[in-house]
Amino acid sequence: MQSSLTLYPLPNYSFGTKAPQLDEDQSVAARQARHMSDYARAGMRKTVEAVLLVHEHGHPHVLMLQVANSYFRLPGDYLKPGEDYVTGLKRALSEKLAPPLDPNDPISTNTQHVDWDVAELLGTWWRPHFDSYMYPYIPPHITKPKEEKRIYVIQLPDKHLLSVPKNLKLVAIPLFELHENAGRYGPQLSTLPNLLGRFQFVMG
Amino acid sequence: MQSSLTLYPLPNYSFGTKAPQLDEDQSVAARQARHMSDYARAGMRKTVEAVLLVHEHGHPHVLMLQVANSYFRLPGDYLKPGEDYVTGLKRALSEKLAPPLDPNDPISTNTQHVDWDVAELLGTWWRPHFDSYMYPYIPPHITKPKEEKRIYVIQLPDKHLLSVPKNLKLVAIPLFELHENAGRYGPQLSTLPNLLGRFQFVMG
Repeated sequence: MQSSLTLYPLPNYSFGTKAPQLDEDQSVAARQARHMSDYARAGMRKTVEAVLLVHEHGHPHVLMLQVANSYFRLPGDYLKPGEDYVTGLKRALSEKLAPPLDPNDPISTNTQHVDWDVAELLGTWWRPHFDSYMYPYIPPHITKPKEEKRIYVIQLPDKHLLSVPKNLKLVAIPLFELHENAGRYGPQLSTLPNLLGRFQFVMG
Repeated sequence: MQSSLTLYPLPNYSFGTKAPQLDEDQSVAARQARHMSDYARAGMRKTVEAVLLVHEHGHPHVLMLQVANSYFRLPGDYLKPGEDYVTGLKRALSEKLAPPLDPNDPISTNTQHVDWDVAELLGTWWRPHFDSYMYPYIPPHITKPKEEKRIYVIQLPDKHLLSVPKNLKLVAIPLFELHENAGRYGPQLSTLPNLLGRFQFVMG
């Protein structure tokens, strides 16, 4: 009944860079306006994010993207129309973290398609309105949530080249740093240690 | 990839009482002393607890035991030597919540053995030392944790009689009341909504 994940040491992975990937929205107001127009056209937004785990000295670390030396986020994306969560997550991870298709063309945004091993669903967050509040359940009296976000955990291979858009940093944050640290990491990232508690970690 | 749980309305369940079950330890110091002597004899304590879910108007509620009109806890117990988590959980739930074996002998502590449907592991908490702090991971440099607690979710049948020890109350707490409410419910109970977020709830 207990699922297991194999974690490899951080130095097993190598990190390159690739063309920058800028946010589509330049402000909170612009993001909200786009969400409203997307919702009017296509209904509830579906978002998918991934937890990639490594270990240092046997303690699990989560790979996160750091934006402009300030906030942290998991790699992921909104689903395209008709895309399912797992397919969309594999596409998003390849866009965000796979090596460029042609290493001699470093400004290309074409990336290799990696068949990421999507292991298990970790958690779900719901956005009832077009504001910033999300909840791990659909709040009472909400019949039409505006966004559903699913967070999956990935089983990484024992070695891998990850290529990071130049405007972002990829950092490995230990579980003990995230735990009960919503002030720095927000309510979603700070509760990842709780969501991961049910797994048996095998240190590879 | 998404697990599902069927929740039934609270009025589907009926609640009786049975003989009181008092805490074995009368103080925090006594509990810690017993933990230390148990550890010296039998090694790491293993604890198991259950999340039993119902719904009211479509919103999930967790059944919890309330002790002395103050603190809340999940039904569960320490494992006996050699007992596995699932067997121990079924025994503990029957002791805490199953009807008395003989309804005409209300002071008996013998209870029916119910074959509870243990659905999935939700989370794990570790106690590195003999104090009150627990973490959802083994903290770095801790090689011999003193306790491992596993929390499972139960698939309840559509109807059931639950018998509650007279010194305890069984209460149904909505997810929205637990969420981000560590002040009242503590770090374990307040993050149950996060752990339950990955389930699809079917309202029966």
